[in-house]
Order: sequence, then structure tokens, then C-alpha cells
Amino acid sequence: MLDILHRVGIKSPLAEVYKALTTREGLAAWWTINTQGESNKVGGVIHFPFSAPDGKELGFFDMKVLELHPAKRVLWQVVDGPKEWIGTKVSFDLKQEGDYAMVLFKQQGWKEPVEFMHHCSTKWAIYLMSLKSLVETGKGNPNPNDTNISGIWD
Amino acid sequence: MLDILHRVGIKSPLAEVYKALTTREGLAAWWTINTQGESNKVGGVIHFPFSAPDGKELGFFDMKVLELHPAKRVLWQVVDGPKEWIGTKVSFDLKQEGDYAMVLFKQQGWKEPVEFMHHCSTKWAIYLMSLKSLVETGKGNPNPNDTNISGIWD
Repeated sequence: MLDILHRVGIKSPLAEVYKALTTREGLAAWWTINTQGESNKVGGVIHFPFSAPDGKELGFFDMKVLELHPAKRVLWQVVDGPKEWIGTKVSFDLKQEGDYAMVLFKQQGWKEPVEFMHHCSTKWAIYLMSLKSLVETGKGNPNPNDTNISGIWD
Repeated sequence: MLDILHRVGIKSPLAEVYKALTTREGLAAWWTINTQGESNKVGGVIHFPFSAPDGKELGFFDMKVLELHPAKRVLWQVVDGPKEWIGTKVSFDLKQEGDYAMVLFKQQGWKEPVEFMHHCSTKWAIYLMSLKSLVETGKGNPNPNDTNISGIWD
């Protein structure tokens, strides 16, 4: 089993980062604008649809909320979406270091190191920088206003 | 053994990307300004020193060039630097897709999923976006003008 790992540091109290990870408004402001569902309740399912800048639908991820520990940890499991994602778990572990909220990110449980995993790894970095921007400046870059990293919208 | 994977697509012929990966001038324009050594010869060693914006030295990576396949593949192995990096291999596999040079990146052989690996994964994404910017626009963001992702220079 293979994991995608990342870390960003956000100049912020932990509570602000936790809010951006656990409210519909927060998630919609850094990951994907049309985020729907129940993000702040264990057992809830969050629907994350993505589109190209021209409006074309690209797909979605549905995540079940498995753990919510305020200011400390969020854990989701993918219950629907691309077949390579289903069953993988996405976690955000938070800790304060000086003025910074450190976010340790993991998407665990990829079965094969397919090209799509390479793409998603880079894309997660871009979205985590969007989370950092949102919390630090009030403005993130959620889909469909995100950075195209590959010349392909997928 | 654990790997960092990424993919970016660069609107460019493969030869331009290969040049940015195998010449001192190219590497200095997207990864670290003070790149030194022999980057275009199998068996050569490239020295990549990093510093903070205030000039403080942060460390370095020394990479031995193991493979050079023009417009196709570059493989390095870390021979000196942080202990977690030594022995790991860094590869760039290139292929054309329409107008885009697709770069599949891998740093393979991490022994443990330490926090530094999380940091380096995110940082590689940032530097690969700098490579993309360099080739597409003529301007990259090499260290020490790179994006600080964590509030800490390390």
C-alpha cells in the first residue's frame, strides 16, 4: 500500500485551520467551490465535485467522515469517486509550532503507483497551498479556479 | 521503501525540459541558484546548496548522475546531504502528450515516512511547478527565491 504525504505550515491558530477542514464554507474556499454534505459530523458524507474552468464536469470524490478531533485531526475515507481512490483514507494531523499550525497530510492506501497517483500527489500540494492561502489571507484557490498542473483537466 | 511521486505537464518540446534537467544553467534557474558540478555526464556529481532569503546556509544535496537518456529520462542518486536522503534515487521520466511534455517524477527509497518526507514531498511539487514556469515562461523560482511552504526554512 502506498501513501501520498505532504506538510504545510500555516501562520494561524489551529482552530482556524480545523475550521477550514471541517466546515462546508471552509472546504469550498480552498478545495472545491461546490462542496456539499455533512463535513462536521462523524459518519457524515461530504461530496466534492470538480469541474474545468469552462464548466465541464470532471468527476467527484465522496468522503465519509471517520474522525474529528478539534484542532488536532480529521480523517475521511473515500466511499465513491475514481476507482483508484475508493477505500483510501485522507488525514490531516495538526500541531502548533510557534506561530504556525503545521498540517501533516496523508492519503493512504493507494494500491499501485499509477500515473494518476503522481498527478494527485502534485495536486494535493497545490490544494494544501490553497488552504494555507485561505487561512493566512482570506483567499484560497479552489477548483475550478485552481492551478492547472498538467495541461489536462483530470 | 517509500517513494515521493509527482507529475507536471509542461507546454514545451521534450528537449527543452531535458535541457532544464541536465544543464547547470537550467537546474540553477528552477531548483537552486548556486547549482554546481557536472550535470550532463553519467558519473558526474551535482552539488545543490540551499539558503534562506537572508543568506543563511541551509544544507545541500549531492547527486551522482546515473542515467541520461535525452528527451526521455534522467536518474540521479543522492550521495551526500541529509541522512534521510542519502541513497535515495531521483528520476524524471519524460513523454510527449499533445503539446505537453509530461514529467513523471519519483524520489524512491525513503526508509521511513518521517515528517521531513512530508515536507520534501510538498517542496518537490513547488519546485516542479518552478521547472514548469521556467520552461513555459523563461522564469522559474529557484531557491532562495522559492515559496516558503512551512514557515520554517529547512
